[in-house]
Amino acid sequence: MNTIDQLKPFLEPKSIAIIGANPNSGEQAFNILENLAHCGYQGQTYPVNPYFAEILGKKCYPSITEIPADIDLAIISTPRSVVPGVVRQCAQKSVRAAIVVGQGFADAVDEEGKRLQQELVEAARQGGVRVLGPNTIGTANAFINFSASFAKQTDMRRLPIALISQTGMFFGTFGRLRLLGKGIDLGNACDIDLAESLEYFEQDPQTKVIVLHIEGVRDGKRFQEVAQRVAKKKPVLALKTGRSERAAGAAQSHTASLVGRDEVWEAVFKQCGIIRANDIDDLEDLVKAFCYLPPPKGRRIGIVSVSGGFGIISMDACARHDLEVVELSPETVQRLKDISPHWLRAGNPLDIWPIMMTLRRPYGETLQALLTEVLNDHRVDAVVLIAGVWFERLSPPITKIIEGLADAFPDKPLAWCPYEGWLYDIRTDELIEKLEGVGKGAVFSSPDRAMKALARLAEYSEFRQASGA
Amino acid sequence: MNTIDQLKPFLEPKSIAIIGANPNSGEQAFNILENLAHCGYQGQTYPVNPYFAEILGKKCYPSITEIPADIDLAIISTPRSVVPGVVRQCAQKSVRAAIVVGQGFADAVDEEGKRLQQELVEAARQGGVRVLGPNTIGTANAFINFSASFAKQTDMRRLPIALISQTGMFFGTFGRLRLLGKGIDLGNACDIDLAESLEYFEQDPQTKVIVLHIEGVRDGKRFQEVAQRVAKKKPVLALKTGRSERAAGAAQSHTASLVGRDEVWEAVFKQCGIIRANDIDDLEDLVKAFCYLPPPKGRRIGIVSVSGGFGIISMDACARHDLEVVELSPETVQRLKDISPHWLRAGNPLDIWPIMMTLRRPYGETLQALLTEVLNDHRVDAVVLIAGVWFERLSPPITKIIEGLADAFPDKPLAWCPYEGWLYDIRTDELIEKLEGVGKGAVFSSPDRAMKALARLAEYSEFRQASGA
Repeated sequence: MNTIDQLKPFLEPKSIAIIGANPNSGEQAFNILENLAHCGYQGQTYPVNPYFAEILGKKCYPSITEIPADIDLAIISTPRSVVPGVVRQCAQKSVRAAIVVGQGFADAVDEEGKRLQQELVEAARQGGVRVLGPNTIGTANAFINFSASFAKQTDMRRLPIALISQTGMFFGTFGRLRLLGKGIDLGNACDIDLAESLEYFEQDPQTKVIVLHIEGVRDGKRFQEVAQRVAKKKPVLALKTGRSERAAGAAQSHTASLVGRDEVWEAVFKQCGIIRANDIDDLEDLVKAFCYLPPPKGRRIGIVSVSGGFGIISMDACARHDLEVVELSPETVQRLKDISPHWLRAGNPLDIWPIMMTLRRPYGETLQALLTEVLNDHRVDAVVLIAGVWFERLSPPITKIIEGLADAFPDKPLAWCPYEGWLYDIRTDELIEKLEGVGKGAVFSSPDRAMKALARLAEYSEFRQASGA
Repeated sequence: MNTIDQLKPFLEPKSIAIIGANPNSGEQAFNILENLAHCGYQGQTYPVNPYFAEILGKKCYPSITEIPADIDLAIISTPRSVVPGVVRQCAQKSVRAAIVVGQGFADAVDEEGKRLQQELVEAARQGGVRVLGPNTIGTANAFINFSASFAKQTDMRRLPIALISQTGMFFGTFGRLRLLGKGIDLGNACDIDLAESLEYFEQDPQTKVIVLHIEGVRDGKRFQEVAQRVAKKKPVLALKTGRSERAAGAAQSHTASLVGRDEVWEAVFKQCGIIRANDIDDLEDLVKAFCYLPPPKGRRIGIVSVSGGFGIISMDACARHDLEVVELSPETVQRLKDISPHWLRAGNPLDIWPIMMTLRRPYGETLQALLTEVLNDHRVDAVVLIAGVWFERLSPPITKIIEGLADAFPDKPLAWCPYEGWLYDIRTDELIEKLEGVGKGAVFSSPDRAMKALARLAEYSEFRQASGA
């Protein structure tokens, strides 16, 4: 069986046994069985626990071997000492996939933990069971309403993003960072590893962008081989943590993986065409850019701002991220001059407020016309718009304007930095959902973050051109 | 009259004439008179416009000279050509303070704009009128429900933050960046300047933190003198824009100020003890840190995280921002070991999840106890907590825990990075409001941003110690 077939039961299980199922209910119960029902999972689920006859209204089995049906996936949530035995029972039942949730294996300070992980690996290998973990939240797949997480996961979205991580924290959201889609938490990665997971998502048609959270890998060479191939097909973003020596030491004890020097990672990422996120804020913006914006042809930016001051802030951001605030073509400048007050500098950045105040036209229409002019300029590769959320109240509303322009200029990224001042009871969150829901345009919290993300998009375009992909 | 008395009518006007008042109503009317009523301003307001007898139900005067009452402040919102004449009328009426909203003066490309600004300055000087602007949104003071802004300002808060800026955009909010409090938009700064405004807020008892948005200054030496004095009394944060040569050129034409080389600014800020924000995201975090957290005694950080992975991410952030992930004292480590599973590394970062899962105690109580242990360690100067928003549902709720610990450890900043995953219908925004509403603790979107802000707090502590302030 190849990787894809072996990982499939982890991501698309039709029947699941929860070994060590607990009868507690409610938000702080961390009950996997209840969470599966809650997130709308449609497959079969079987609780296993010798101490109960029934859990949450379902018949409970004393052992996985006694379940009278085929099991695609076992989720093992028992104390560490019994895990190797449970894996042997899985093998006996011909279960081919097991998630080991528990902590205290190679991640523990004691020798017992390391020994138990070794025993677990041997049991799995002998029995033909592939194992994810231990020390993992498991897998998730929003496309089939499935999450193995012991924490309630209510708001799953069918995003084209696949996450391979070494912490379950990324299965939820941190600020506006949302990474599932589909997810694999490798945990201690005693068996299933980064390279294999990457190969799985390489082939997955529902995955457009792959995000890696890496503390370390066991087989660096294999990872590099696979990553190099995959990054030419799909953007691969990576947050490599444990950068300093001490943090690397902590990473090693967290998931017991080989961590390597940060300079080596930097070189590997560069060579493979992997886009490195420096921190989780950076990752948030990169995910947005790579999911919702087309790759730009170059680094020439047009800036359209309701404020002269923010035009300058945007220029600073361009300089910082090696983007060019391009001179607009003479034809564009002339057309802008024709509708500007004669005292206004009509160029890039374009300060649209004086134009809106002078023209006796609806503000939304003026915005649309000015954005179109700048996007239409053949010298411009991408546009950043700084404009208030209140444009949403106008006709046409700003989300419709951006959506329309994303269709009209499919090869020019359009990023919006919404100004929430002058409050009109419109929540930026809702506007972001509106735009990202249709996959058009992207919203950033500041010109600096928008420019940084555009620069990384441009970098990836350059990599693909250079590598002939 | 000294600076304070001269600026007072701009920040605390008892009566206001709006010259060039317009009769339009509603959200896109940008009607200053209507906005004043809307934000709850309690002083007298007088519309002035020769074309109307009444505006929004108020008697409208053909000229300011005909208003039968004393006027503290004139807000001039007329086409540029008539502004110098209007200023002369203000002088005739003995008005001592005028805000000139209009654009197209020294900020314009044409010579006429520069000439008009010169004429305006001369008229003001001859008549004893102090002028703010032109090209300004004016002033605001949430403590008296006053904003001169032509844009509707609904959500004013009595924050201890004073803003001196060269764009009106900061009068609203950008993401979670909220800078008023009180505000002065200098615009072209033809008369009232940065140094003077700084002196005003130096004396203002309601101002705890001063934020500057600078494109350039006219009198650098004077600014430096004042800033050096003020920064020893109150934290002064600065966003200096127009950093690159081209952006500096644009800044010069935006507000016609002297911009200077960025290295010079950097040196001036350092010497004065001004904390420089690199971009608006940075500014958002600095404002939070300086408003809501005490200055730490040093750079030794304790990390308390529900995730081992995020402990490592936090260590990376410490290394990046020159903070120390301190070894906890042996006594603290022993006390933590006593309640941890025996296989867990009890130290810093502290991974609290295994402890919470093992102890049969309510999670909120465990969190509170563990945070207390780490804060109580004499080796720890500040603590960063990474924990889910769902703790708010527990008893005690996380906001109460943080509030209580802020009281118990008044000299140790406690920053929280809330994890929104595992959604429990709690909005982080609301939790932020809850904590910041009582001025205890601060919330950051990521460990990296929290550490960066703590590092700047520590830097300011060091500056004050070194300068004997």
